[in-house]
Amino acid sequence: MKKKSTDQTTPKVIAGVKSPTALNPHLKNILAQKRKQQGDAAHYVQGIQEGNKVILSQAITIIESTRPADQKMAKSIIEKCLPFANQSIRLGITGTPGVGKSTFIEAFGSHLVEQGKKVAVLAVDPSSKISGGSILGDKTRMEKLAHLANVFVRPSPAKSSLGGVARKTRETMILCEAAGFDTILVETVGVGQSETLVHSMVDFFLLLLLPGGGDELQGIKRGIVEMADLVLINKADGDRVKLAKRTSIDYKNALHLFPPKTSNWTATALICSALTNDGIEEVWEQIGKYIKLTKENQYFENNRQQQAKYWLEAAISQGLQTAFYQNEVVQKALIKIEQAVLKNELSPFQGAEQLLKLFKTSII
Amino acid sequence: MKKKSTDQTTPKVIAGVKSPTALNPHLKNILAQKRKQQGDAAHYVQGIQEGNKVILSQAITIIESTRPADQKMAKSIIEKCLPFANQSIRLGITGTPGVGKSTFIEAFGSHLVEQGKKVAVLAVDPSSKISGGSILGDKTRMEKLAHLANVFVRPSPAKSSLGGVARKTRETMILCEAAGFDTILVETVGVGQSETLVHSMVDFFLLLLLPGGGDELQGIKRGIVEMADLVLINKADGDRVKLAKRTSIDYKNALHLFPPKTSNWTATALICSALTNDGIEEVWEQIGKYIKLTKENQYFENNRQQQAKYWLEAAISQGLQTAFYQNEVVQKALIKIEQAVLKNELSPFQGAEQLLKLFKTSII
Repeated sequence: MKKKSTDQTTPKVIAGVKSPTALNPHLKNILAQKRKQQGDAAHYVQGIQEGNKVILSQAITIIESTRPADQKMAKSIIEKCLPFANQSIRLGITGTPGVGKSTFIEAFGSHLVEQGKKVAVLAVDPSSKISGGSILGDKTRMEKLAHLANVFVRPSPAKSSLGGVARKTRETMILCEAAGFDTILVETVGVGQSETLVHSMVDFFLLLLLPGGGDELQGIKRGIVEMADLVLINKADGDRVKLAKRTSIDYKNALHLFPPKTSNWTATALICSALTNDGIEEVWEQIGKYIKLTKENQYFENNRQQQAKYWLEAAISQGLQTAFYQNEVVQKALIKIEQAVLKNELSPFQGAEQLLKLFKTSII
Repeated sequence: MKKKSTDQTTPKVIAGVKSPTALNPHLKNILAQKRKQQGDAAHYVQGIQEGNKVILSQAITIIESTRPADQKMAKSIIEKCLPFANQSIRLGITGTPGVGKSTFIEAFGSHLVEQGKKVAVLAVDPSSKISGGSILGDKTRMEKLAHLANVFVRPSPAKSSLGGVARKTRETMILCEAAGFDTILVETVGVGQSETLVHSMVDFFLLLLLPGGGDELQGIKRGIVEMADLVLINKADGDRVKLAKRTSIDYKNALHLFPPKTSNWTATALICSALTNDGIEEVWEQIGKYIKLTKENQYFENNRQQQAKYWLEAAISQGLQTAFYQNEVVQKALIKIEQAVLKNELSPFQGAEQLLKLFKTSII
């Protein structure tokens, strides 16, 4: 690890995320003053590198802001954090609501902290787009975990497109890594497109399922099981242990039918109970095996480079489309041309060509 | 049908596709002269509307050409054909090599012709990109079918990107419809991305499978079964009838587990033998039921409009990306910026922003 480690003797400073003022109002004032005086990215970067969770939180808020001044500051912070990022293990965790994701993350995260890990929990939540809320926004969730010194929990950025949420989460990841968090958990619900986005920002992808019933019956979209590096049957406690074991064997067999992964890793299925902590250790062992294998066969690094390339291309595509569809000349013509295409008066390709010509002329 | 019907008294004129000169060299000369004299799209459009397969073939060649003069002519031809297009039933047919696709299309196409249909067979073949060849290029394939007066067989456009092939096939479809072909079969192999593209240009999607073995064992990618409106177990003859029946029952059950389609159609599974013609009639009956249902519930028309919108947006996106990646300033900077992103010196989003700025400055 290249970054400075957190000063463990001052847990008070980095203890709270939700309400730092309640824990240390004096500190907050000092920080605010300092920020006013400095007003530059260096202040945030220093705080982040010192593992200060309050400053980390503030910096993430700047990243999530849509104000141009904040956007400029965010860019500067990310740039300065980049050299200290990229050193963590990034884990994607997906599963439908009800599968016990937060209880699992609480149990799993606690286990990681016991192993000496520093854990950041982020979320990509498509529903936050609609509700304006967040799956991690509920204060009662992961309360025990969130208050551990070596844990940082951040809700999903709300009120944005899924692509926007994913992008901000990926940038937040950089800041968390620069703050010394060496294990990043990115949580998402396994019902839409968000898993594909999360899959393209993590090293290892974990799918949580319930005992009994196929993934499709549990509301998991096709293609998601294929992305999983580990299928984990949660709630394997009490009466459900037997059923959970049977389900995990079914998945173990089914996973073998998929074509081999580029990583050379054979996905498997395990059972666990976030309630009794049974099987939690084994999950981390599996991930350790995966990391060892993929670091040895270079897949780990190659995959991260592929992911960086993917995000570069996606951001270019997004940028081009935004420029196009927000262009006033295009917007005016689009309605008419779309109508002509829908009425078969114009082929889609000719419609596109006309619009692209208008776009080009309007910006020259 | 709005277009003129083909003159059935002159089958010689429209009999050959592969080598029209061999059939009527005199005619070809007349056509060539006429083209020289006229040199405009009206000549092609008239020939197409008269159902002249030779002229139709020539017009498609113009569409497939990359020469700017041809591209201009192609645009004009398509525009003039559009009012006469859109009146057909468009069927997508997919299945891995070995499933008997061409034999099926031969049997099925012949049955359609017996029902008084005019059938055009097109192909979207991703492999033609690599080989420069074409799945329909083999002269021995569908020979019987191709020589029927009311049938037009056209190989996949070769040597282009998959998107390019799909686009040209969609444009070719317009010309075929204007030529009075009322049933368009678009063939593709069920192994890659091409089915998604074909799925977005047809009304009904048919998946051919072999008796025995799941779709994944047969090399069909996940997600394709879900797109199918009908799963057809081919080669249900001789010893294989029993196995084919069992396979079709398995699929019938499995298809019920998928979420209901927007079309309200319940996909089912049937068996057939392109060799003995058993079950071929039933396939057409199923398609008839589908058309009736979706025309009544408006899905048919809505879906076509959605597809037109999809192709408009895809063409816009493609056009933007082409302009971007072919820009010399971008090309020069891209290598450096990509390297910086891969080395974690620059975040993908900042890299994209820099490139987009360069692109904008270079075209203003």
